[in-house]
Amino acid sequence: MSRSNEGEAQGSKSPSGSDFLQLDIGRAPPGGRTDWLAGRLRAAIADGTLPVGSRILAAELRVSRGLVTEAYQRLAETGQVAGRGRGGTVVVAAPPPSAVPAAPAPAPDRGGLVDALRAVPCRIDLSPGVPDLTAFPRTAWIQAERRVLAALTPADFGYGNPQGTPALREAVVGWLARNRGIRADPDEVVVVAGVAQALGLLAQVLHDRGVHRIAVEDPGSLGARQQLEYGRMETVPVRVDEAGLDVAELRASGAGAVLLTPAHQFPTGVVLDGERRRDLLAWAAGGGLVIEDDYDAEHRYDRAPVPALRALMPEGVCYAGSVSKLLAPALRLGWLLVPPHLRDAVTAAKRYADLGNPVLAQLVLARLMDSGELERHLRFVRRRHRRRRDAMLRAVAEHLPGARVHGAAAGLHLMVTFDGARFDDTDLAAAALGLGVKTHPLSWHRHRPGPPGLILGYAAGTAGEIEDGITTLGTALSGLPDGGRKVFPQGRQPPGGSRVVRG
Amino acid sequence: MSRSNEGEAQGSKSPSGSDFLQLDIGRAPPGGRTDWLAGRLRAAIADGTLPVGSRILAAELRVSRGLVTEAYQRLAETGQVAGRGRGGTVVVAAPPPSAVPAAPAPAPDRGGLVDALRAVPCRIDLSPGVPDLTAFPRTAWIQAERRVLAALTPADFGYGNPQGTPALREAVVGWLARNRGIRADPDEVVVVAGVAQALGLLAQVLHDRGVHRIAVEDPGSLGARQQLEYGRMETVPVRVDEAGLDVAELRASGAGAVLLTPAHQFPTGVVLDGERRRDLLAWAAGGGLVIEDDYDAEHRYDRAPVPALRALMPEGVCYAGSVSKLLAPALRLGWLLVPPHLRDAVTAAKRYADLGNPVLAQLVLARLMDSGELERHLRFVRRRHRRRRDAMLRAVAEHLPGARVHGAAAGLHLMVTFDGARFDDTDLAAAALGLGVKTHPLSWHRHRPGPPGLILGYAAGTAGEIEDGITTLGTALSGLPDGGRKVFPQGRQPPGGSRVVRG
Repeated sequence: MSRSNEGEAQGSKSPSGSDFLQLDIGRAPPGGRTDWLAGRLRAAIADGTLPVGSRILAAELRVSRGLVTEAYQRLAETGQVAGRGRGGTVVVAAPPPSAVPAAPAPAPDRGGLVDALRAVPCRIDLSPGVPDLTAFPRTAWIQAERRVLAALTPADFGYGNPQGTPALREAVVGWLARNRGIRADPDEVVVVAGVAQALGLLAQVLHDRGVHRIAVEDPGSLGARQQLEYGRMETVPVRVDEAGLDVAELRASGAGAVLLTPAHQFPTGVVLDGERRRDLLAWAAGGGLVIEDDYDAEHRYDRAPVPALRALMPEGVCYAGSVSKLLAPALRLGWLLVPPHLRDAVTAAKRYADLGNPVLAQLVLARLMDSGELERHLRFVRRRHRRRRDAMLRAVAEHLPGARVHGAAAGLHLMVTFDGARFDDTDLAAAALGLGVKTHPLSWHRHRPGPPGLILGYAAGTAGEIEDGITTLGTALSGLPDGGRKVFPQGRQPPGGSRVVRG
Repeated sequence: MSRSNEGEAQGSKSPSGSDFLQLDIGRAPPGGRTDWLAGRLRAAIADGTLPVGSRILAAELRVSRGLVTEAYQRLAETGQVAGRGRGGTVVVAAPPPSAVPAAPAPAPDRGGLVDALRAVPCRIDLSPGVPDLTAFPRTAWIQAERRVLAALTPADFGYGNPQGTPALREAVVGWLARNRGIRADPDEVVVVAGVAQALGLLAQVLHDRGVHRIAVEDPGSLGARQQLEYGRMETVPVRVDEAGLDVAELRASGAGAVLLTPAHQFPTGVVLDGERRRDLLAWAAGGGLVIEDDYDAEHRYDRAPVPALRALMPEGVCYAGSVSKLLAPALRLGWLLVPPHLRDAVTAAKRYADLGNPVLAQLVLARLMDSGELERHLRFVRRRHRRRRDAMLRAVAEHLPGARVHGAAAGLHLMVTFDGARFDDTDLAAAALGLGVKTHPLSWHRHRPGPPGLILGYAAGTAGEIEDGITTLGTALSGLPDGGRKVFPQGRQPPGGSRVVRG
């Protein structure tokens, strides 16, 4: 059974995007029709007209079959489409800017690959980065909001402090002291609309000060990299190994700032070890700025909490966190601790971004933090997340026997790699999406080449969904043209059992 | 009774800022100590260390009295301080960039004068731009939120559509059709965190497309101008007269875009007349982009609603509105209608700004719009606002007999001018602030010179507070050194009755 047939059988939920393209082959230059068509398709993928997961049916393009086949070939070479045949070709865009050539009109992938994938309907969503959303404490939230509304003065409904309401800044300080070992003053806190906004504000402030290059982890979050690049920063990939970010490579890069995830590296799950921490803080003491994205540090299962870098060195570290993985991304609420020399500039950037976060939700969150309700919620979801992680580990061991598991000790996702395998993980992700299961290919989050892999979120699904999703991934893997023969060509990973690396 | 004595008697709520300055006169260059001190004070005013409303006491500066007097003289010449004597000198910063020289380190006034003034405590707040906040529909809001929370699916708590939740985009389209005569498609709506954010996003998109100069109204909103300038746009002031923006001057300016308030010009209250509208639309048809800030169009008392420009010309107009003046600024929620050629770029800018507005409040607002609750609320506050406007008109006629009133037919504020008078309106605003009454001096919102004036918000205060506030303004006016003698030196405005210009 070929991929394309599976796509036809199972992919009925995938949107068909090609009828939006309105291609007019008459506009192609003579002798350059293949390039022209491939360019139009690339542009449509880059600007989101043709979203990830779309099926491109040759018949719909209203151009000759031979031309379509050639254009597909071009796109397949750069990893942008996968699958051919009656089922159509599924768009699996590779991350810009490395793989997606410039569109005819200047159209960088501003919609964001991750957004595009989010919009694709699916049966089981194993995308990383989302907690158990069924657990959102609706009753506690509405009760807190009722109390907040009853206590508000009319002036509180006016324009607020762009830095954040004092009540929330104090509550955040308490939260960080109790949960992350951080001592801070409420004046150091800037309330933001999540870590994405925090990165945008910092990019602006750094750029204004002449810092135009920022180091990022490799592998590291594609979304964070795109955020910084939209903010006019050049991102410099720095290698992550078993000890975390390679600080020697950071030093050699000449970047003036670095963004990293030291407590539970995204996506590998590695913890920045003691020696690297000391070395990184020495680098920061020399004038480098560390941006610490503490994105899921509260979610740990098998180990003691890792202290935040900010707890060790307040001066050289901007510390960012949010409720996206504690409560829900839809709240768009987070915090940034800013060292004194950047505080006014970051507050001004926040002011001009939106005049400050909405006040009601800030006060509700402050109340949930102060009352202990948020800690109760965290303990509750941590138990659920742990059970789901265990379900995923069992399923991976059974259905993806060649997979190596990384970073299972904490967080909301696993990374699996197929070490030694030669297939392209965007092919695997596309095949899985065709079967209704959404994941992130590891290559999305990587600059340098490496073994294929997937990022698998386990927090948002039930144990049954996780079992089903991983089983489907096994089916997708075995359906790859080289799945059976080439996954372990060098015999480095004997099938029959997955190795779990405790990150 | 001199201003300074009044300041001492009444100004105890004003913060004293000078002890934060930590001036070290030893660092002043020999022979340049006055310039040095004036420069330090200017910098402190510009970067917000010395907020508007602060009193600078000579004794606290720990420098010689003669030096202080000379430095004050310099600052008084540029309108940055007012009042001298035992009560100290009150900071009344004039708007940058025209009047505030560059600080030693590059420190544009990023904190914002308006923010600084907001932070000053006062007895009666007649600042413009805020509706009756006691009327916020707390019960309707919490009831709608309870229903929204009960109906949400877990996926709704995840990352949402950066362009805004479809339910709110549809509700906004309905609201604009019913209240502003606008026909739009939900796909044209981008949900934003208020008009301030809308301007920031548009500045970014325009700048990226090579449009670096934008025309603004003169007089026009200082806050909007600062927002655009922070977004790297050069603002070009274009004259506003009785017919609204001077489109011939706009055309001559060469600016590629214009921001204006056609329904109720801020701060004059003038309505853009029919001929100017036609001329503006002709300009837009030639490639210019119109940004229509419809900031308080729903608040009208004595005239039929003025149609939005967007209703006449969807293609060349970006239309911005928010709930700040309908419900409360603290909600940070608004909308932007974007023509097709800019929609993807604006949505991308919003995505990278904050990944989209928080979802709960969007759904609550959609429910209030769809249920008719918001229209009921608007009818209710419109009656209250009208009574308050009438109270202010009566008080102005009685206590500011030389004042000319502008723009009383709609909105949430009046503008008064003292035509022919020679005093500086920042002196008047400072004296009033010393007596506990907060207003905006007209010169803050003006590039070109003109008669002194004040912007007086009436929506947020009771009739009694308004009467008290305007009475106090009369006292402040008569206490100005030239108040009695020079307000009407040319006899153009006979005292005894105010002229109301129905804008």
